[in-house]
Amino acid sequence: MSAQKPSIPRGTRDFGPQQVARRNYIFGTIRRVFEKFGYAPLETPTMENLSVLTGKYGEEGDQLLFKILNSGDFAKDVTAEDLAAGAKKVLPKVAEKGLRYDLTVPFARYVVMNRNLLTLPFKRYQIQPVWRADRPQRGRYREFVQCDADVVGTTSLLCEAEIVLMIDEVLSTLGLTDFTIKINHRGVLSGIYQALGGVGSEPDLFVAIDKLDKIGVEGVSNELRQRGFTDEAIEKVFNYLEVDGSFEEKLTQLRTAFGADGVLADATAGPAKGLTDLEQVQGYLQDFGFENFQRLDFDVTLARGLSYYTGCIFEVKVNNVQMGSISGGGRYDNLTGAFGMPGLSGVGFSFGVDRIYDVLEELQLFPEGAVSAPLCLIANFDQEGRATVLPLLRQMRNAGLAAELYPEVSKLKKQFEYADKRGIRYMLLAGPDERAAGLVKLRDMRAGTEVTLPSGEVISRLLELSAEQR
Amino acid sequence: MSAQKPSIPRGTRDFGPQQVARRNYIFGTIRRVFEKFGYAPLETPTMENLSVLTGKYGEEGDQLLFKILNSGDFAKDVTAEDLAAGAKKVLPKVAEKGLRYDLTVPFARYVVMNRNLLTLPFKRYQIQPVWRADRPQRGRYREFVQCDADVVGTTSLLCEAEIVLMIDEVLSTLGLTDFTIKINHRGVLSGIYQALGGVGSEPDLFVAIDKLDKIGVEGVSNELRQRGFTDEAIEKVFNYLEVDGSFEEKLTQLRTAFGADGVLADATAGPAKGLTDLEQVQGYLQDFGFENFQRLDFDVTLARGLSYYTGCIFEVKVNNVQMGSISGGGRYDNLTGAFGMPGLSGVGFSFGVDRIYDVLEELQLFPEGAVSAPLCLIANFDQEGRATVLPLLRQMRNAGLAAELYPEVSKLKKQFEYADKRGIRYMLLAGPDERAAGLVKLRDMRAGTEVTLPSGEVISRLLELSAEQR
Repeated sequence: MSAQKPSIPRGTRDFGPQQVARRNYIFGTIRRVFEKFGYAPLETPTMENLSVLTGKYGEEGDQLLFKILNSGDFAKDVTAEDLAAGAKKVLPKVAEKGLRYDLTVPFARYVVMNRNLLTLPFKRYQIQPVWRADRPQRGRYREFVQCDADVVGTTSLLCEAEIVLMIDEVLSTLGLTDFTIKINHRGVLSGIYQALGGVGSEPDLFVAIDKLDKIGVEGVSNELRQRGFTDEAIEKVFNYLEVDGSFEEKLTQLRTAFGADGVLADATAGPAKGLTDLEQVQGYLQDFGFENFQRLDFDVTLARGLSYYTGCIFEVKVNNVQMGSISGGGRYDNLTGAFGMPGLSGVGFSFGVDRIYDVLEELQLFPEGAVSAPLCLIANFDQEGRATVLPLLRQMRNAGLAAELYPEVSKLKKQFEYADKRGIRYMLLAGPDERAAGLVKLRDMRAGTEVTLPSGEVISRLLELSAEQR
Repeated sequence: MSAQKPSIPRGTRDFGPQQVARRNYIFGTIRRVFEKFGYAPLETPTMENLSVLTGKYGEEGDQLLFKILNSGDFAKDVTAEDLAAGAKKVLPKVAEKGLRYDLTVPFARYVVMNRNLLTLPFKRYQIQPVWRADRPQRGRYREFVQCDADVVGTTSLLCEAEIVLMIDEVLSTLGLTDFTIKINHRGVLSGIYQALGGVGSEPDLFVAIDKLDKIGVEGVSNELRQRGFTDEAIEKVFNYLEVDGSFEEKLTQLRTAFGADGVLADATAGPAKGLTDLEQVQGYLQDFGFENFQRLDFDVTLARGLSYYTGCIFEVKVNNVQMGSISGGGRYDNLTGAFGMPGLSGVGFSFGVDRIYDVLEELQLFPEGAVSAPLCLIANFDQEGRATVLPLLRQMRNAGLAAELYPEVSKLKKQFEYADKRGIRYMLLAGPDERAAGLVKLRDMRAGTEVTLPSGEVISRLLELSAEQR
């Protein structure tokens, strides 16, 4: 076989030591918060049956599914007529499995398959990669990790309040301070549509509102006008979208406006339910003693995922950084209907780790500890030194420190370069003279400084230095 | 769309909360040891180009690769003639990517693609799933996780000694005590063949020896006889395989026998190199102060991976448990030749996590802490209690404890059942009477006992109980 120049598929990535360490730092932070809030981990297979995946993500999603070729003589049932009819006709005969496209459908599938074993409410989190045959571009990959947490089987708004707490804790723990947790409610958006008294279509309204950030008031107005909304209706829409003030003030203004427009008749659904839900979420947060209300923004223009969200909606943006939302979610009321188990309500959210990674990098927020280099490299002077340095190496590791001996006796310059390139902070030097005196030199590779100390003290010194580095 | 009964593909698994927690306990233990020994994490994409994968695992391996159907109109270049010619002809036109089959080929591909950036020696570990379209059976899955550590770019036998230390530390940390780390050397096996003076073929000899465990002396003798080995040669083979005693004693016996058979002429290769390599590994372990030599077995019959291993060979078995090897590895000298970068030597090994999981389960060695349930569930008596219990809940989490409030006010019986089924150890009860008195009840769900204490003391009490549980 002739040698080839290897490559990786478009839209996929290798993660080297530093990237893995930094990504694990983010995953670990998210995981710890999820677990503190009582969410339990779930992992589902990379491959799902296409019968489970197909039809769950719309026509476009079906196109973007990666399909796995059946094993063995996969083409045996394909006829020339199938070929002539095209890929759609051939597909069912050559592939019955696909790669996970998101974590929600596998979660729903799991809940249905295990319905008799699960205790509701069921709180699960899932941190796994997903695959989409999308056109790769900056920040968009064909393999990327999603971090979802969902609770199903309860309508308690405690869950929504805890989502705010979890988002706040994860991002704060990662060192972010200037971010906004936007919250809205499907009922409030419906209320705005109802207030128009039957003008236009509800989906058209939501699609237009969702673009406000991008195309501005003028753009949204134009779009609504094209979709058949009257000038009067458009003015009313913007009156709603421009409610202002604190969380409470917005609630009060909306309650007044909805009242005037006569859409609060049913206190248990639609806009009235939207307002009381939001009030309750706020109440829970107050009882929790949540200190960061300034980060929580009741944003009437937030209109994401409206084909499935039925209650609260969340979206999180980092301020002063050019980046899309880094987290989002909402309440849905029919997670498992497609699998024959209707009426299961839940609420969930997820973190976009690739974006969070880029933000932390831009703001230089990765801690020094989030690298995956040993703390100490022991220089390899000579074979005679083994009896001294190998026990030291063992003691370091027994003390929980990551350390290594350069594996070969070679020029010190080469060993220094190795430590340097790997980002190893300390080098331990125990040449013949030091060994004879029971001493070692410890060199701080970053500072370029060196101390000499009794070899019996090196472990405790390294433990101190390691603690400082955290 | 009509509702369907969902399922998962054959040979794949969902992992629920307890399984994920226990698997992560194993992965975490392995990861920490790898990192303490200076290995850095690498992650490669799930999909690799088929040009990278094909031809690396033999004819059978190529069959077992999962291939990904190209996106879009994948069948457009397939002709009726291709169909008639069969899957082999169709495959290159419909699929150019496949799922990772092991971690070694992606590692080799990564090394070659990054050859100009990497500092040698390069020590990497990789813990990721792989996929094989094998026939599923008990203990054999189509998706399973491999845990590999390799160091390339050095021939130092320090690496082999450290593999013994890592295996010993990982398994000891997991609570295993009765296991055997078998070690052998390709050069020793070659020496046995050379000692036969040209009878039979070397691969035939190794294939037969490797079966000794399964088919016994009689079986191996028969097989060798069928392959053209003379009775005299077979007797000589068994004289070698039956060397006995301590590590040193075996080395001495082999040196004597090899000397008598005249195969030690070249001191830098073959059997002579095998014996000195093993001696050196032992010497390194002695200098390290390795205490568990009784677990290290120089096993002349160990003959795995002989198509790629060129130096030391490892295999680990748990004694007194019916289970194949749980770890193995060896030194190779041409990792990247297929990608046009010849002569790169390295040594690596891996852990079989599914088998380790089953062993720990059988021996009941999973610690109580390796479950993923919150420590405490706060009962939800009434809406009025919120102002008391939500701050308590927040304090628990701020103290690093996993805890939750039952999300709805409902019957205590139901809340107890929930705690019980989720494996939550403690329940905190703060009904109207307790709240009025500033007290809470803390119930140990396992012991069935209950204590009443001031609500101000509950956090410190739970921290104590949590520490005990570790």
